Amino acid sequence: MPKVTVYEVGPRDGLQNEPVAVDSDNKIAFINRLSNSLFPAIEVSAFVNPKRVPQMADADHVCERIAKQPGTRYSALVPNIAGLDRASAVGLKEVAIFAATSDTFSRRNINMSVEESMAQYAEVVKAATGDGIRVRGYLSTAFGCPFEGAAPVDRVVRLTQTMLQMGVFEVAVSDTIGIAHPGQVKEVLAALTALIEPSFLALHFHDTRGTALANVLASLDFDIRTFDSSAGGLGGCPFAPGASGNLATEDLLYMLHGLGYETGVSLEGVVAASEWIEPMVKHPLPSRYYRAALATRTR
Amino acid sequence: MPKVTVYEVGPRDGLQNEPVAVDSDNKIAFINRLSNSLFPAIEVSAFVNPKRVPQMADADHVCERIAKQPGTRYSALVPNIAGLDRASAVGLKEVAIFAATSDTFSRRNINMSVEESMAQYAEVVKAATGDGIRVRGYLSTAFGCPFEGAAPVDRVVRLTQTMLQMGVFEVAVSDTIGIAHPGQVKEVLAALTALIEPSFLALHFHDTRGTALANVLASLDFDIRTFDSSAGGLGGCPFAPGASGNLATEDLLYMLHGLGYETGVSLEGVVAASEWIEPMVKHPLPSRYYRAALATRTR
Repeated sequence: MPKVTVYEVGPRDGLQNEPVAVDSDNKIAFINRLSNSLFPAIEVSAFVNPKRVPQMADADHVCERIAKQPGTRYSALVPNIAGLDRASAVGLKEVAIFAATSDTFSRRNINMSVEESMAQYAEVVKAATGDGIRVRGYLSTAFGCPFEGAAPVDRVVRLTQTMLQMGVFEVAVSDTIGIAHPGQVKEVLAALTALIEPSFLALHFHDTRGTALANVLASLDFDIRTFDSSAGGLGGCPFAPGASGNLATEDLLYMLHGLGYETGVSLEGVVAASEWIEPMVKHPLPSRYYRAALATRTR
Repeated sequence: MPKVTVYEVGPRDGLQNEPVAVDSDNKIAFINRLSNSLFPAIEVSAFVNPKRVPQMADADHVCERIAKQPGTRYSALVPNIAGLDRASAVGLKEVAIFAATSDTFSRRNINMSVEESMAQYAEVVKAATGDGIRVRGYLSTAFGCPFEGAAPVDRVVRLTQTMLQMGVFEVAVSDTIGIAHPGQVKEVLAALTALIEPSFLALHFHDTRGTALANVLASLDFDIRTFDSSAGGLGGCPFAPGASGNLATEDLLYMLHGLGYETGVSLEGVVAASEWIEPMVKHPLPSRYYRAALATRTR
């Protein structure tokens, strides 16, 4: 059976965007439940400025205390060498850097232009590689920027290549604002895969306009085999203005397994992890498969 | 540009499944707003037993008073000759019959076995055709039945052929319980299109498990060019147990237009129609594109 890697980002991209903070012990218990669902990779936190991102202030504490499973890779965002040093100190063997396609977004997010961020990230990748830590690259706003609008495809290709040349093991091409539709996915992936081996690419979709799963289906045709998602669709609530959660892991797994792909992840385990975290974020999680699973069980 | 027909079923399949009843005048105003969004086809009501389906008791009243647009076909469900006579009396030129793949579902829904229903529908189609009324066929539970489980593909093919042989102009192959995933869609459509010209088929998905839009994308590869949907995702609320709305029209249009298909339908018009009906059903409508459109406007 063909294999797909589902990269669980709920503890980081999900919880970082929840209005209600989850305490560290509950984060750890949540991550342990995800580990028991046998994800190949989980992004657990971010070593960023706690004043700017208070939800991730406990990154060191969380990374030290989770029960790491041998079959799972654990990763965290690092914006700079200081972040890398923190990640290294708690024993992470994988980190992620996060660039954007537009200068406006980049300045607002990490206070640097895109080119400045690339120069800094090259140093981070070099240092990480020297420490035996591998680095994932995110290219945010690859399908559109909330400030600058459309992301030129040639720019997406060039920046993806720049990160790969630094030495990242894959680039997660990311639809940060959930605006991509399969037509755009086909256009961007045709350009990317003309120059880049698909195994160097991951796709990271948000389900803001309901297209995330269809975007995955379109991506599979380009031999993309790694997708990011968050348990329950954490990080978004369809009834909150502007909320835009990641593609929900349950919905992704249901489709992938139905298409005959092997993920190794327990769908039932993810549903159970979502059910456990749901009361802590204090709103119903938006994953449709998850909601249907609960409803079916109730009947 | 290639064309796709979006068949709006919100006033019927949507409102019939809303727990709060919408009064007739508001239904008429809603349908008129949908007509102004230039849908090629709208299913407006059902001439069924008002004791069993009180939400559709005003079918005659509604069909008589809507402002029919020349470019739009208006249709209603008819279970039998009595229903057809009511539809004919109010001037409808298109009706729909609704069969199922499983005897259990069929008996619960229309109190007949599948074979009994087909015999009765053959009479309805004959009478309708004699009156110059064309007939659409629904094949419910084509991807699974809540009582009998899986729907055998050969049975789906045979029943679709049976309805086409009666003289229906197309069969809407329907995922009544929203369980289909693209893997199953490919399997069913490969079997159907091996024997049936795709222009005789429409696909009708519910978004219960989040896969509806991906299912449409998979169907497009089989040259399917007609899809059912409901404005705002009427008929479902992601936070209500067991609720399973139709694929939302806004989400469908956003994807189809992004893929370069021409529908002729105004996405902005549909968003406005959804916004108008939302307070009457007394819960937030689940369409993700719709919610994102409102949120973007608010900011």
